[in-house]
Amino acid sequence: MARTLRIDIDLSRSLRDDDTRALVRSLAEFDDVQLAGAIGNCSAADQDRVLMLLPAVRRSEVFGQLRPEVAGEILGRIAPEEGAALLEEQDADDAADILGELDPARLREILARFDPEDIEELNELLAYDEDSAGGIMSPHFVHIEPDGTIAELFEIIRALEDPPSQIFYSYVLDDDDRLLGIISLRALVLADPSLRVRQVMKRDVISVTPDADQELVADIASRYDLTAVPVVDAERRMLGVVTIDDIVDVLTEEATEDILKMAGAGEEIIDTQSFGSSFRARVPWLAAAAAGGVLVAAALSGFEGALQSVPVLALFMPVVAGMGGNVGTQSSTIVVRGLAVGYVERGRLASIVGREVGLGATLGLIYGIAIALAAPFVGGEVSDPLALGLVLTFGMIGSMTIAATVGASIPLLMDRLKIDPAVSTGPFVTTAVDILGLLFYFWLATVLLGVSP
Amino acid sequence: MARTLRIDIDLSRSLRDDDTRALVRSLAEFDDVQLAGAIGNCSAADQDRVLMLLPAVRRSEVFGQLRPEVAGEILGRIAPEEGAALLEEQDADDAADILGELDPARLREILARFDPEDIEELNELLAYDEDSAGGIMSPHFVHIEPDGTIAELFEIIRALEDPPSQIFYSYVLDDDDRLLGIISLRALVLADPSLRVRQVMKRDVISVTPDADQELVADIASRYDLTAVPVVDAERRMLGVVTIDDIVDVLTEEATEDILKMAGAGEEIIDTQSFGSSFRARVPWLAAAAAGGVLVAAALSGFEGALQSVPVLALFMPVVAGMGGNVGTQSSTIVVRGLAVGYVERGRLASIVGREVGLGATLGLIYGIAIALAAPFVGGEVSDPLALGLVLTFGMIGSMTIAATVGASIPLLMDRLKIDPAVSTGPFVTTAVDILGLLFYFWLATVLLGVSP
Repeated sequence: MARTLRIDIDLSRSLRDDDTRALVRSLAEFDDVQLAGAIGNCSAADQDRVLMLLPAVRRSEVFGQLRPEVAGEILGRIAPEEGAALLEEQDADDAADILGELDPARLREILARFDPEDIEELNELLAYDEDSAGGIMSPHFVHIEPDGTIAELFEIIRALEDPPSQIFYSYVLDDDDRLLGIISLRALVLADPSLRVRQVMKRDVISVTPDADQELVADIASRYDLTAVPVVDAERRMLGVVTIDDIVDVLTEEATEDILKMAGAGEEIIDTQSFGSSFRARVPWLAAAAAGGVLVAAALSGFEGALQSVPVLALFMPVVAGMGGNVGTQSSTIVVRGLAVGYVERGRLASIVGREVGLGATLGLIYGIAIALAAPFVGGEVSDPLALGLVLTFGMIGSMTIAATVGASIPLLMDRLKIDPAVSTGPFVTTAVDILGLLFYFWLATVLLGVSP
Repeated sequence: MARTLRIDIDLSRSLRDDDTRALVRSLAEFDDVQLAGAIGNCSAADQDRVLMLLPAVRRSEVFGQLRPEVAGEILGRIAPEEGAALLEEQDADDAADILGELDPARLREILARFDPEDIEELNELLAYDEDSAGGIMSPHFVHIEPDGTIAELFEIIRALEDPPSQIFYSYVLDDDDRLLGIISLRALVLADPSLRVRQVMKRDVISVTPDADQELVADIASRYDLTAVPVVDAERRMLGVVTIDDIVDVLTEEATEDILKMAGAGEEIIDTQSFGSSFRARVPWLAAAAAGGVLVAAALSGFEGALQSVPVLALFMPVVAGMGGNVGTQSSTIVVRGLAVGYVERGRLASIVGREVGLGATLGLIYGIAIALAAPFVGGEVSDPLALGLVLTFGMIGSMTIAATVGASIPLLMDRLKIDPAVSTGPFVTTAVDILGLLFYFWLATVLLGVSP
């Protein structure tokens, strides 16, 4: 009964040699979740092989635990009959997620093998955007009338032929399916069985419409500590529920998306093994950075004279630009994440930018002095060490102040313009900081060292 | 009954003028969660003012919805009696989180006003690391004996004097409090009331020990779709449960921590308004980057001759280092997040690094040619444009290949060494890339342009 949990299991050794019996034995050692994780990291041939070695019931359980992308790829390879059989065992919302990964031809082939009733339900779910409440909701929930008693409600739930796989609330609907209130399972169990549903139900219910962004649904569930959020149409007619297991997935997915966007590395860890998809995800971001880099070179070309007479200036370009880039990334990250988790109040833009600018200037002063003091030990020919020290100190202050200003402002501006602020960090901020910070540094050098640009 | 949800509400206008009546009216318009969010963004004086204007019952509800850091700061300011009163209305695990924010003197003052029975429970919770399962578990759960019937179990739950605020499972314990199995509330409601607990309970239960990292608990709950994870000691005696609302908080908190660590901006959004705490969180990271920057300058000082004879080389330093930095950040981000969400299999390090190196080289080739073609339009005196083009092309290939290798390897290495890989991105990767990439670029220049270093 006691369980040691190893989330990462490694099937590669068992797969490498051809001993099918040993493989079957090792498959039996792991639970469905462990196995699904391992399958996600296998090659296509091994994925199919492992799945086919599992007994039919376990096969559909493990299949249901796969990431939708992996499940979709498998469905693209196996026989449509087998695919339909695997899908019919899943919850409708999970089946719709997987079907959303297929190309239209394959989708039709598989749906053709489905029960006509299930097809209608799936088509309704597939019609919603996959990142919306409609796309992640389950159309199965316990619905009851307001006039029965709690004891009768128990009878209704017990008599359900196919009870939903997750029940957190019972939904009280009027004759037109409009949501009147909810009773949590906890309240149901604690309530006096002779009371009427109407007396026990909670009327002040938070709901969302099917077009609501999944991020908003997750945000609501997490702030209000809800285990399920009802989805209703404009007339407040009940369409489905988004349950906490899907909300947890959304939170992880959205955090990944933000992290990757901030690094300019695409939006999804589509498939860590595919060279092509990684390549395509990263090229556009780098194109922006490369164009920015050419701009930097063009901007600095006006200072070729200064570089020729004081080549030591070039040695400190990386630290001036790099420290600026670091401060800019810090500022933008704090603002972007603050906006995402709600710690940054949108009404106080000026004070946030002001604080970041102050931080940038203070940090610039400290590290500017530190680097100016280190400069004489770096080497290189310097005719006027004091003047170079001043260039470095004020150059760093300027670069880091500019960086903090740009880093904090761009995401706030994007948020105002309703663009996801996560895309604004990374390449954008560092390029802007490179150009402005280095121009300031070289301008300062021409003034303080008295060289012509 | 229909609710429009505005997560961001702005109290600043109502707070600015002194019309207390208008303020009280606007407080009544918002729900507890909205109000707690707005209070979190107020100044200290306004926080205390808003709380004290609320009726006592609502005050403790709103207080319970505050972030622990904000609640802790408020407790540091108000009278200890009032603080104890607010805390006694909270769940024990939430109260412990808030108490963990206080300095020892204040903690003693407030605990002295507590019920002796509650103190013992709180002291037990406070003894655990706040980031462990013990630190986030609730000691309140429904526990039952294996030999009763389901109908009797209902009676026991209904008779509870102070039922837990969240009930997802009933825990079946033996005479020594050892966990035998669980019954979900759903299974309880669906089960035939005449069956025995022993017949209905699920025996294969996943549990954690109190010292388990909260990240592991969240990972287990999210992979196994659990709404509560039991915490047991080494003898499998039941200590408490970690419920899904806390798990959702952990997921958000850990994502924030990873994002900030990756940007070298500390670990927590401690308080977006405090200059001092932001300053302290960022200084150490920048110190590493500054030391790296001085190293870069020292490493490049060997190439002063090349810079003097071909100053145009300096113009392209930002793009060579910057594109390397971008690719390095992309590689490390994908590996770090892949490790965190389990998409990167730890057994396949070589293939992951290999793919990243291949991507770096390919991207370097493409952008190297692009920048070499753009170079003649940038300006600057070039005696041998073809040779400069070759330096740029191969310099970019080298810099981006090095960057991808470093970016992908460092987090994998750290993971092997059991260090959180998130700390390895940001300043570390960019500094390493600056040094190695630029050294390669200048070495190439001395060879291809035939200048002395």
